[in-house]
Amino acid sequence: MPVNLQAPDGSRLFPVSGVRLGVTAAQVRKPERKDLLVMELAPGTRVAGVFTRNRYCAAPVRVAREHLAGGSIRALVVNTGVANAGTGEQGLADAREVCAALSQRLGCGAGQVLPFSTGVIMEPLPVARILAGLPACCSALAEGQWLDAALAIMTTDTLPKAASRRVEIDGRTVTVTGISKGAGMIRPDMATMLGFVATDAAVSQELLDRLVAEVADASFNCISVDGDTSTNDSFVIMATGRAGGAPIDDAASPAAAALREALTVVAAQLAQAIVRDGEGATKFIAIEVAGGRCRDECRAAAYAIAHSPLVKTAFFASDPNLGRILAAIGNAGIADLDAGGVRLWLGEVLVAEQGGRAASYREEDGARVMAEAEIAVRVDLGRGQARATVWTCDLSYDYVKINADYRS
Amino acid sequence: MPVNLQAPDGSRLFPVSGVRLGVTAAQVRKPERKDLLVMELAPGTRVAGVFTRNRYCAAPVRVAREHLAGGSIRALVVNTGVANAGTGEQGLADAREVCAALSQRLGCGAGQVLPFSTGVIMEPLPVARILAGLPACCSALAEGQWLDAALAIMTTDTLPKAASRRVEIDGRTVTVTGISKGAGMIRPDMATMLGFVATDAAVSQELLDRLVAEVADASFNCISVDGDTSTNDSFVIMATGRAGGAPIDDAASPAAAALREALTVVAAQLAQAIVRDGEGATKFIAIEVAGGRCRDECRAAAYAIAHSPLVKTAFFASDPNLGRILAAIGNAGIADLDAGGVRLWLGEVLVAEQGGRAASYREEDGARVMAEAEIAVRVDLGRGQARATVWTCDLSYDYVKINADYRS
Repeated sequence: MPVNLQAPDGSRLFPVSGVRLGVTAAQVRKPERKDLLVMELAPGTRVAGVFTRNRYCAAPVRVAREHLAGGSIRALVVNTGVANAGTGEQGLADAREVCAALSQRLGCGAGQVLPFSTGVIMEPLPVARILAGLPACCSALAEGQWLDAALAIMTTDTLPKAASRRVEIDGRTVTVTGISKGAGMIRPDMATMLGFVATDAAVSQELLDRLVAEVADASFNCISVDGDTSTNDSFVIMATGRAGGAPIDDAASPAAAALREALTVVAAQLAQAIVRDGEGATKFIAIEVAGGRCRDECRAAAYAIAHSPLVKTAFFASDPNLGRILAAIGNAGIADLDAGGVRLWLGEVLVAEQGGRAASYREEDGARVMAEAEIAVRVDLGRGQARATVWTCDLSYDYVKINADYRS
Repeated sequence: MPVNLQAPDGSRLFPVSGVRLGVTAAQVRKPERKDLLVMELAPGTRVAGVFTRNRYCAAPVRVAREHLAGGSIRALVVNTGVANAGTGEQGLADAREVCAALSQRLGCGAGQVLPFSTGVIMEPLPVARILAGLPACCSALAEGQWLDAALAIMTTDTLPKAASRRVEIDGRTVTVTGISKGAGMIRPDMATMLGFVATDAAVSQELLDRLVAEVADASFNCISVDGDTSTNDSFVIMATGRAGGAPIDDAASPAAAALREALTVVAAQLAQAIVRDGEGATKFIAIEVAGGRCRDECRAAAYAIAHSPLVKTAFFASDPNLGRILAAIGNAGIADLDAGGVRLWLGEVLVAEQGGRAASYREEDGARVMAEAEIAVRVDLGRGQARATVWTCDLSYDYVKINADYRS
């Protein structure tokens, strides 16, 4: 039951000149569902990515990092169903074989293909079925296939996730379109499993490398469903340059700022879509922590709240058992935090200050906010100027059901 | 549905000479249930404690720390129902008022009483009802009331938790008896909410201070139900000296070793009882991580597994979806961990090595172990000699149900 999330309207997803997409049902794990995606990039497209920091990072992540370092990427290949993580040396060989097969078909080098996988961990990649599906993907390649692409990378997602935007930069119309997937094992450390955003803007490689980190930090790195960082998290931005003009290169220029803004809006929408479609989610919760000495401690407090099963179940129950939020803040590892200086609001309702419940607080006010589907939790740590926001969801029976049933 | 846990047999809980207990139904939160406990200690009893590191630590924890520093403790008073945490200055005043009232009744100083509370956070302590209950507790004081005491400190516990043991030390019979409570908000950072162990051994204060930390570290600090560190965690050892003899003082002596062993066995039994009675638990899981460079990284890996909702729901489902354990290990924050050197066993079944599934692994072997109620997860990090064990439980529908309903 996604929270205020609808399937994207395919006609509102603007094609990005220079990016062609094709999908097929390759039967990677389940019959009759789209599970294989090829994205072909025009020559000269610049690509930058950030990846999971999980030490069991998946074989395709390792290969993608390696190929990305070589530059000049011409295609991405993505399968769902099997994550090709925890698969040792064979997993690396399998990922390379898929890249090689696609490169032959597209007439580029194997090192110019980035592989991505998502699904069950520690099961071998069914390479033969993927290779058999590549011709159908390549025959289907077209610019207007973003919705199909979003469908082909889903796992426990109940809805496809895509976002698109057109902006004017230096007098030219620039398009930004992206897709993402994910519903569980969501607590991206670098990026989420998986996010792909394309633009036809012309950007230098140096600026794109910088933008991908900044945009991930303001979008996918602000979400959590269950605190579990995936083995396959990947976020990639592709810039084809087809919008024309000289490449944007100066990070401080108005053009760079406009592009950063457009990319961030699309990426944040994709990231929030993952939380709205979080496994079993019934509430979308924005946790805004201000007044910290640094951004890290604000994030620590926000994640302590976002990851507390007791806080998450209270949200599910619409029960303003808000002492659990105080306990979570106290548990955030901020060693010298003075609880007496912390203030907590639920929406606009001041809940706690001076170490305890606010004198003005009434249970019925808390209950009113808790009953809503979209909830803002605001915390002021009262010790500085830094701030951070994390988006999360509640913990329901259905989270347990989905994850107790996932493989069956 | 506790996992292999029965209510203790009251006749098997040995009284500790010098410790008298009395309980009553003070109607702190719910009518007609035992919810207030007084423990009276003979003069000369040495007391040591460790407490939560949560920065929103409860008012009684702050007062108990302060009184403990003054020494010469003569009584403990414990209520369930309301935690007196997140209650600001009023909470401190309330805890002090309870101590003062009990001290007048027992003829000692208010600073010689340690207060403890457990229950809902951010609600005021009903001081009047507690004061009204103290006379009944004091009239009931007797040495053989350990089972009643265990009953009077329960919250969402389904069973009382107590353990008892007699050992010979230097030719004298020494008794160790203790109680604990807790089922949710369990990830003790110093000790659990709440554990009390008494012994009639004669021990120096210095050694007792050391023992309480060592014993907590080998028992309550090895458990997690849901990763939420409580605001009220407290673990206290009381030594009356009534067994006779000169106080044990040399930490390296055989007598100290025997006492440490007896205390640890009782405390570990109490700690494991909390996990076996963990909210919604259907499985008891021991996670043993060896081969680390230091104990901290072994504990980090063990807790990453113990806290992963995906791992916990897989255990609930008896589904050997064991790649989730690899992902959790990779997510433990051991920056330079080589996944290729890690080995994972489920019971005696080797599951993963060399970065992927072991060649000898068969799904049916994993499924057989997963179906059991008591499961050992063993990990070898392959990079050192350190080891650590953490005890945890699974995540079931009932955890969500209990915590979505707790206040209602």
